Amino acid sequence: MLVKSHPLGAAGLLPLRTVSATVASFPQLAAARTPRVEASLRRYVDRLPDGCPEQLREAIAYSLLAPGKRLRPLLALMAAEACGSDSDEAAVPAACAVEMVHCYSLVHDDLPAMDDDDLRRGRPTCHKVYGDGLAILVGDALLTLAFDVLAHDVRPASAAVACCRELARAAGAGQLVGGQADDLAGVDAANDLESLKSIHRRKTGAMFLASLRLGAICAGANEDQHRALEDYGAALGLAFQISDDLLDVEGNEAALGKRVGKDAGRGKLTYPGLLGIEESRQWAVALVDEACTALAGLGQRAASLEALARYVLERDR
Amino acid sequence: MLVKSHPLGAAGLLPLRTVSATVASFPQLAAARTPRVEASLRRYVDRLPDGCPEQLREAIAYSLLAPGKRLRPLLALMAAEACGSDSDEAAVPAACAVEMVHCYSLVHDDLPAMDDDDLRRGRPTCHKVYGDGLAILVGDALLTLAFDVLAHDVRPASAAVACCRELARAAGAGQLVGGQADDLAGVDAANDLESLKSIHRRKTGAMFLASLRLGAICAGANEDQHRALEDYGAALGLAFQISDDLLDVEGNEAALGKRVGKDAGRGKLTYPGLLGIEESRQWAVALVDEACTALAGLGQRAASLEALARYVLERDR
Repeated sequence: MLVKSHPLGAAGLLPLRTVSATVASFPQLAAARTPRVEASLRRYVDRLPDGCPEQLREAIAYSLLAPGKRLRPLLALMAAEACGSDSDEAAVPAACAVEMVHCYSLVHDDLPAMDDDDLRRGRPTCHKVYGDGLAILVGDALLTLAFDVLAHDVRPASAAVACCRELARAAGAGQLVGGQADDLAGVDAANDLESLKSIHRRKTGAMFLASLRLGAICAGANEDQHRALEDYGAALGLAFQISDDLLDVEGNEAALGKRVGKDAGRGKLTYPGLLGIEESRQWAVALVDEACTALAGLGQRAASLEALARYVLERDR
Repeated sequence: MLVKSHPLGAAGLLPLRTVSATVASFPQLAAARTPRVEASLRRYVDRLPDGCPEQLREAIAYSLLAPGKRLRPLLALMAAEACGSDSDEAAVPAACAVEMVHCYSLVHDDLPAMDDDDLRRGRPTCHKVYGDGLAILVGDALLTLAFDVLAHDVRPASAAVACCRELARAAGAGQLVGGQADDLAGVDAANDLESLKSIHRRKTGAMFLASLRLGAICAGANEDQHRALEDYGAALGLAFQISDDLLDVEGNEAALGKRVGKDAGRGKLTYPGLLGIEESRQWAVALVDEACTALAGLGQRAASLEALARYVLERDR
């Protein structure tokens, strides 16, 4: 099992990387789960209806099946486990749906009219390969497919509707799309921490939370479990974004698979830019501890979610 | 009541515009229903969550609340009536959802990377006013909102899931998005009727059918009713597209609210271009008769759907 949080950790003073030797590392935990997700994603692409033009299918596969961390699917699967799901399979459609939405948002955000990025997951971005028009359609198709998957493959109907509701909220104008719109409009130019947190809460945090909630819904979670995951997800989302900003400053482009220094280069507000590298790092550590503390009531079944949170501080991509 | 189809009509020889004086005209039937749809669409925009930036909300309102024919919402409402819906309100969320998907597809299709249109519903297109980036996000938000509305406001859960499933199929890679991808790739350059029909079946027909099916689901329709609406919708969708092409050749730009002659000017394949104006017109007449014949089993409650089909031949926009 995972050792208890170091007492100093909660104050954000020390990084906590002490996972006991008897427990699998996060990369091992992930490796035990992602092949199922990859296989399902591939199956969804293979099963696109006949009316889907071959080039569109190819562009969807190019974007969706590119090597990714699959963090959101893992959150869904691990949340289902943490809530005592009795089936390993129940949350797989939800895991695929959140990855489809994440992937659609990357494809659209990378467009020249948005962030104008050339590199994603170590490959040329979708529009660089297939053109802007088809890239817009790839995003549209993936967003639609996410709801298709939930409506077809989550059981019972009440859980499927709840999943559609959560995903639509997290992906909608008030969250994912709204955060990107503010980002696009340069709202963070206000140069304050609250604007930055508000954009990230919507752009990253909301989909982290939705991933956890969808997993929990598929496991038939109770209210206490939902609440614990919400606290976990809120802290984790912010920690992840801070670590993303740190990687953008310090990271290795080859490992990341995308350009580094691009946010700073564009004059975009980042946590290290606002708080300094060291304070940002300490805050991320404190947030990860906060996330892990929130899991306490879920017991040993939440060990993989704890490992995932700790990994946020260690990752190089 | 509507008079029976003229015997020659089925052969596509005569236009049928003979609606008896005791029945309201289609514009009257529409005017009795669209205010409810307009009010609901406006309410959905007003209720976008706090996280939605003001400019995004404004751009969504600009696109969604622009004066439109609201044909798809009318199909949903009238299908629910035809299937004996005991509540006038049950199908309104579904009617709004199909309009949101239609509107999103117009906003994205109008982008410079796609059809590059400047005029829509008599106004500058969304990207002309708000920029390409925000227009992409408006489309993304509307597509997501459609599923949000279905998942929140259609009852019971089994009907909500069925609606999400139908909408996702019609809007997905095999239908709406797939048809647009083929259109974008210039697949109709093959210059044959089958390619043209295949694109239109996916771009227009699928959402017509989905509108009818969503209305029918909200009314708790039985299988016979679903089948009748499917036959009606298939014929209607094709008739509508032919009449659209005819309007593009012969129509009045001011009435249409979009450019005329643009398809022919781009060398795009059209029905009049392929079959000639007169044969296209006759085919549309025959299809409308076919659509009305399919309604026979639904009885008098389907009178407004019949009036809608007849109107396709008379409209000037």
